[in-house]
Amino acid sequence: MSSAWLLPEHIADVLPSEARRIEELRRTLLDAARGYGYELVMPPLLEYLESLLSGTGRELGLRTFKLVDQLSGRTLGVRADTTTQVARIDAHLLNRQGVTRLCYCGPVLHTRPSGLHATREPLQFGAEIYGHAGLEADLEVQELALEGLQRVGISQLTLDMADARIVRGLLAGVPVDALVLDEVYASLAAKDAPGLEELTRDFPAESRGGLLALTRLYGGLEVLDEAARVLPQRPLIRSALADLRWLAEHLQATHPDVTIGFDLADLSGYAYYSGTRFAIYAAGGADSLVRGGRYDEVGAVFGRNRPAVGFSTDLKELARWSRVNGVRAAIRAPWGEDAALRQMIRRLREQGETVVCVLPGHEHEVQEFDCDRELARVDGQWVVKVL
Amino acid sequence: MSSAWLLPEHIADVLPSEARRIEELRRTLLDAARGYGYELVMPPLLEYLESLLSGTGRELGLRTFKLVDQLSGRTLGVRADTTTQVARIDAHLLNRQGVTRLCYCGPVLHTRPSGLHATREPLQFGAEIYGHAGLEADLEVQELALEGLQRVGISQLTLDMADARIVRGLLAGVPVDALVLDEVYASLAAKDAPGLEELTRDFPAESRGGLLALTRLYGGLEVLDEAARVLPQRPLIRSALADLRWLAEHLQATHPDVTIGFDLADLSGYAYYSGTRFAIYAAGGADSLVRGGRYDEVGAVFGRNRPAVGFSTDLKELARWSRVNGVRAAIRAPWGEDAALRQMIRRLREQGETVVCVLPGHEHEVQEFDCDRELARVDGQWVVKVL
Repeated sequence: MSSAWLLPEHIADVLPSEARRIEELRRTLLDAARGYGYELVMPPLLEYLESLLSGTGRELGLRTFKLVDQLSGRTLGVRADTTTQVARIDAHLLNRQGVTRLCYCGPVLHTRPSGLHATREPLQFGAEIYGHAGLEADLEVQELALEGLQRVGISQLTLDMADARIVRGLLAGVPVDALVLDEVYASLAAKDAPGLEELTRDFPAESRGGLLALTRLYGGLEVLDEAARVLPQRPLIRSALADLRWLAEHLQATHPDVTIGFDLADLSGYAYYSGTRFAIYAAGGADSLVRGGRYDEVGAVFGRNRPAVGFSTDLKELARWSRVNGVRAAIRAPWGEDAALRQMIRRLREQGETVVCVLPGHEHEVQEFDCDRELARVDGQWVVKVL
Repeated sequence: MSSAWLLPEHIADVLPSEARRIEELRRTLLDAARGYGYELVMPPLLEYLESLLSGTGRELGLRTFKLVDQLSGRTLGVRADTTTQVARIDAHLLNRQGVTRLCYCGPVLHTRPSGLHATREPLQFGAEIYGHAGLEADLEVQELALEGLQRVGISQLTLDMADARIVRGLLAGVPVDALVLDEVYASLAAKDAPGLEELTRDFPAESRGGLLALTRLYGGLEVLDEAARVLPQRPLIRSALADLRWLAEHLQATHPDVTIGFDLADLSGYAYYSGTRFAIYAAGGADSLVRGGRYDEVGAVFGRNRPAVGFSTDLKELARWSRVNGVRAAIRAPWGEDAALRQMIRRLREQGETVVCVLPGHEHEVQEFDCDRELARVDGQWVVKVL
């Protein structure tokens, strides 16, 4: 019993000062999404495991907690990601013909942490747009993600782009074993050129050269010129490079303060994305704060293959970077039965003030709130006095 | 695959219109609690099972989903209630000497629904005050609960009170088997006088008479007079009746519009509460919207036995009763690269407006938002026109 307060590894309580920040972030991001016309949905924490993992990669399956449903005897999963759920809502429940914009904010659970200091219970916020295949949708979600970060006081942002079609274009027509393919992806992600050279020894020269070139194709806009020069002239690759250029130029015009970069070997979530992809970093941050992109196939398993593009972020991680603090000054009030006092307290609270009643016997305790004023009786009247 | 969209029983998606209402409720209740000086905390969804169930009843254990922690090999539980977690935070993490006010809002999961139409994933909001044994704390949480409901537009409220000390006082010194005790509680809860007569046949006359009287002791303030007359004159019972009277009189003075009732046989959560208890009902509602009371022993298993009183409610249930709808009118805007247009859209969004961009090719789709205005170019200027 003495250790009843111990929590599992990578699981933590969020205490008042941090909780206040996270709540501020949550409201700010939901309001930003609402300003763009994204409607809030709340998918459940639990689903049948097959639904939850429909069309997703093996990695998500390993990260998903499983439990048994006492009502059906079937295996349930606790969501490790919300994207598939929102795709299910778009495809099956809303089933609208036109463009649908949805956003969400809620916890997800991971069986294992994604890093040394990562939580196993991120608070995931995300926004998705369905039903538009054009780049205007990709641009809109990038702009919303940037605006959300800026509104919570995270500036000096870098947005890195990539495109899932480039590697797909390079591998088109190459017969390759699934296990080797995984290693190719891992080598690309690690920019491990020697490893990649070894793995692709038997690949056609054009594909091999292209894959090797990718490990060097990161940096500014010049990367796109270089890529056009060194990568094979295949339609998928040409489209990807043109789309990246269009997005970068449009984004730079409206967000001149954001550094735009490219990392054409970045393959995180490769099982998932089908087109342009992006990741946003804060100055000095090694891990991305936001990840997103186009995943047009996501609704297929729910019977509706619509174009889709979106992003997600973890508010617990954002809170570490945000300058929002949400502290609000408070008014200290004595406890009393006087009707005028009670009415005054009620009115102040209705006006949005925090009024902390000091309960009898606790007059000398330190208040956790920053009480800069107090309710005091002066000449028979209750007034707010500055402390 | 054709049924990948099916959800488990008593688990549902929350779609946009309801999600918007719930989000409004969430903010309103958190703001109300903040107005009273309650600090937000966010305990985790997962804990070691022993911690989660420390000091709680068997019923909560049955309602808790269990899973295995891959990192420790130990059994984890997904919280089915947040109160114990918050008590742990007060006792162990904050460990303050003085009065501590905490609130929370997050999902809980239940293995089985509590009723025919109940969700297995309530969104629990609650507030707790620690460190004050006096009735002023009981009164404060009752007032906060009432004010929260009134702020979200639920009026014509009934607040029913009871006190865990009355049954305890009646059973003091009666040797009774645990299984029989469970049946006694069940008969009291069901106001099953014949059943109770049978069960208590061998009880001392005073206890037996008192227990039987409880099944008739519900109604208005007259119930307290009647109870004082018919129940044995024992200290625990006398204190309970005096406390209930004090609370009712104070609450009625500040909330004349609330109907105050008593149901001295109400035993829901008997394993839990130690003093006054209350439940709030909306007009025409058979189930309580809010339940709360005093549970001074809750922190004991975490090494700190502080006075505690609080309440909780399910926002998904509240949303069915609330008149809040959160609908906001929107502005429709064309998609375009014109810098003046983009700047105008950005400024409107910063002002809190929802501006829905109609993406190219989707000009004739119905907007889900209630667009009562549109951005249009008039004489070379972008202006907001009423539709």
